[in-house]
Amino acid sequence: MSYFKKMDNFLIARTNKYNVFRCLVRQGPINRAAIARLTNLSIPTVMTITAELLEKKVIRSIGKGESSGGKPPEMLELVPDSYYTVGVDIGRTMIRLVANNAAFEQRASLQELTGNPLPAKDFVKRVSGLILRIIHMLHTEKEKIIGIGIAMPGLIEKETGRVIFSPDFEWSSVPLREWLLENLPFTLLVENANRALALNESYFEGEEDQNHTTFSVNLGHGIGAGLVLGEELYMGAVGASGEIGHITVERNGPLCMCGNRGCLEAVASGDAIAKKAKSLMEKGRAPILAELCGGKGHEIEARTVFEAAAAGDPEAGKIVDEAAEYIGMGLSMAINVLDPDRLILCGGLMRNGPSFFEKIKASIQKHKMKQTGRELVIFQGTKGENSTAMGACRLLVNTLWNEQRLPI
Amino acid sequence: MSYFKKMDNFLIARTNKYNVFRCLVRQGPINRAAIARLTNLSIPTVMTITAELLEKKVIRSIGKGESSGGKPPEMLELVPDSYYTVGVDIGRTMIRLVANNAAFEQRASLQELTGNPLPAKDFVKRVSGLILRIIHMLHTEKEKIIGIGIAMPGLIEKETGRVIFSPDFEWSSVPLREWLLENLPFTLLVENANRALALNESYFEGEEDQNHTTFSVNLGHGIGAGLVLGEELYMGAVGASGEIGHITVERNGPLCMCGNRGCLEAVASGDAIAKKAKSLMEKGRAPILAELCGGKGHEIEARTVFEAAAAGDPEAGKIVDEAAEYIGMGLSMAINVLDPDRLILCGGLMRNGPSFFEKIKASIQKHKMKQTGRELVIFQGTKGENSTAMGACRLLVNTLWNEQRLPI
Repeated sequence: MSYFKKMDNFLIARTNKYNVFRCLVRQGPINRAAIARLTNLSIPTVMTITAELLEKKVIRSIGKGESSGGKPPEMLELVPDSYYTVGVDIGRTMIRLVANNAAFEQRASLQELTGNPLPAKDFVKRVSGLILRIIHMLHTEKEKIIGIGIAMPGLIEKETGRVIFSPDFEWSSVPLREWLLENLPFTLLVENANRALALNESYFEGEEDQNHTTFSVNLGHGIGAGLVLGEELYMGAVGASGEIGHITVERNGPLCMCGNRGCLEAVASGDAIAKKAKSLMEKGRAPILAELCGGKGHEIEARTVFEAAAAGDPEAGKIVDEAAEYIGMGLSMAINVLDPDRLILCGGLMRNGPSFFEKIKASIQKHKMKQTGRELVIFQGTKGENSTAMGACRLLVNTLWNEQRLPI
Repeated sequence: MSYFKKMDNFLIARTNKYNVFRCLVRQGPINRAAIARLTNLSIPTVMTITAELLEKKVIRSIGKGESSGGKPPEMLELVPDSYYTVGVDIGRTMIRLVANNAAFEQRASLQELTGNPLPAKDFVKRVSGLILRIIHMLHTEKEKIIGIGIAMPGLIEKETGRVIFSPDFEWSSVPLREWLLENLPFTLLVENANRALALNESYFEGEEDQNHTTFSVNLGHGIGAGLVLGEELYMGAVGASGEIGHITVERNGPLCMCGNRGCLEAVASGDAIAKKAKSLMEKGRAPILAELCGGKGHEIEARTVFEAAAAGDPEAGKIVDEAAEYIGMGLSMAINVLDPDRLILCGGLMRNGPSFFEKIKASIQKHKMKQTGRELVIFQGTKGENSTAMGACRLLVNTLWNEQRLPI
């Protein structure tokens, strides 16, 4: 019966150890008295636990700190390279890998053009190869790799790590985790890329208040999002939450890749923006846009549409404005239903200058419920191109942490 | 620092006591060996705790049960009337009060027409009077009332119980909790009515699996919802979650009471349905509807529109169909973003025959993302007219439970 959590001395000891370790990760270098204060544990308990962690070499002494009166206390800190995690972002354009140590310092990174993801089995084998290569780059024993987090666009089956459906990759029912495990004898977690990104973007080093409700949206070729409660990713019943790209924003709108009509993704994603521009040019409109493309209208990307809009092309401007309007509409829905205190906008579309961000904010202001008295902070994602891979690492560590399976 | 939960012997003892008590509430009558098995506690621990609970008279012995071989074990159960809670549903039409005992058996109920809710201060005084009356009806000592839960339509400030905005009541910034406390020396919690209802509707007596993700929507004069994770209500950052009535479903739709355009509530709530019908009749259309109203078109309610639709009035039928379409669209958004495994449709609109429910389901099927592999169960709320007041009680008990403030 799930609602009874057994409390016993073993659980206390383990939880106390985790709290001391977490305190060292977060606050180190730190002395034992400070740990005791922050964790509410007694000094003898902290001494026993730190002795064990020192013995296991996951923490180390770095000598005496400053005295606050008596003799100067011994300062302890995490041994950053006591273990490693690998994060993989399987994107439609690039595959990006990072290897982090226990302190989340990046120890290696690797990236490669995605190319053709079919046949899926061959592609997955290639990803396995990349993972083995980055592990090799760490020059460490295999035992120090505590696990691998994979971020993949599309719907992922939570329990099995199977890709149910990924339109970008034209995959359906691909047993990604199972196939990776054939070559990789590691703990392996597969998560939706938007949610992995959301987790990483919501995390801020040294932030005191850990109780934020953060909604983070990825605006790129497609549109997806993740909800982060405190430091935990909201999963939903089957792990299919955050699919804001497939909410209907235009009842009889254009057809979406998911099969429905008028989805946010079908009217406001990078792909939708490019598609609209292409159709305009075919009709001989949008002259600046046509010039910027230099006749290669069939290769047009959202970026070019933003450039044309900035250069004063009214038709391109209209496409951009409309996308911002729809995105603000869609995000307002999430705001009204989820009541977050932080909203983070990430992804390729946000790299087209500050005015798009301002337009989305104006649309949110227009569409969200106004009387809530809620202080909603809206900002752009700041964590760069490896953020999704980092998020996959964080999710792995969170999972091992919750299951108390870290090697401490 | 919020992420360190202190573990000590006091917390263990308290948690164990709560687990034993919960087991008795849920599974009683039950013997000590069965409690030990269900809670993973040792028999001596269970004996100590049950002795304390017996001493405090919150549980009692009901004699010997059936033997499974040895001597027949003593059966224990909750003393249902060891304490009471009061739940108040301040609705726009009716004020409903229930008083429950510890076993959630209803011991008293009371209801009264809401009437004019202005001036707010006088109205709140009247509500205080009703609460004192239902407490009087219990014929018990004041000490046995562990608290009062209030459910109120509108936006409630989580920390203070202030009504920020309630369009139905034409209230803004009414210090509801503060005013009630002037006459009621009790623990007092104010919650949004839709969320209170959601909590009660998501609860099923004796259900084994407590890990559902339930989204429950109230379709009435207005439209609002609540998300229930396991047995806990999802709150959001400031307690303004679940406002699905104010998501935009029609970009340039009619004006909503919240000040925005095209909100779900403005096109599909009971009020919106009545308003559309009124406007049709003013134009001399919808003949069956006009006949059903008997010339009193200005008093038309959604119910009459449903009756006219059932009787074959094509214009009334169109209004009903469109409402169902929009509701399904709005709910699909919540489904795509929240990934629930249960969706419950409640409220006055659902009491207009089974075809409306079927139409909403069809619209959800059309608009939600289809590839998730999610097994979503959709059903109608079943808990009757006191469900919101019951939900207010449940929320109060959950809160006291989480804060370990139950009198056990």
